[in-house]
Amino acid sequence: MNLKDAFLGLDNYFSPRIIGEVNDQYIKVVKIKGQEVPWHHHEHEDELFYVVKGTLLMEIEDQPDQLLKKGDLFVVKKGKNHRVSSKRECLIMLIESKTTEHTGKLN
Amino acid sequence: MNLKDAFLGLDNYFSPRIIGEVNDQYIKVVKIKGQEVPWHHHEHEDELFYVVKGTLLMEIEDQPDQLLKKGDLFVVKKGKNHRVSSKRECLIMLIESKTTEHTGKLN
Repeated sequence: MNLKDAFLGLDNYFSPRIIGEVNDQYIKVVKIKGQEVPWHHHEHEDELFYVVKGTLLMEIEDQPDQLLKKGDLFVVKKGKNHRVSSKRECLIMLIESKTTEHTGKLN
Repeated sequence: MNLKDAFLGLDNYFSPRIIGEVNDQYIKVVKIKGQEVPWHHHEHEDELFYVVKGTLLMEIEDQPDQLLKKGDLFVVKKGKNHRVSSKRECLIMLIESKTTEHTGKLN
């Protein structure tokens, strides 16, 4: 499967689509535009972000902001408060445990 | 981290480098050229392949060959005999369980 094609027909922002799985992890794609995701964390689970298109602002508590660009890979470690946003539409692949809830625990 | 940059200084083919982890999975990068990997399988573990550059021939027992191109994502399910090769150099990201051995069980 071509990763870009996995976004076809995905119309809503912040609405991840599961496109596959590897072991106990889901592979998801999500379109992001704006800032609808509140600060949150996943108590027991890391979360991998891979930028397929566009630019993602990754804010993490007690760490410098990360401006992730196309081709960038970033793992938010479990327990870390974070939020993501993008001024323009960006396309992201996520890899996270099947047990992970979308916005985890709010702060 | 930019995924392409993760290959810098990786000189040897078929010699994966661990570049990160997400939950119980390693994120690895590997350069492939030629056909040095024998048919093998991983009894209990899936293996994700993502083509960063070039073209990868994925052969899987009892399935059509897959010619994976840049931007293609493919998961080899546990227990499936497979082998990979490439006529020209290609760059691959792997995601696999930390317990996975490089060429698993030979056939």
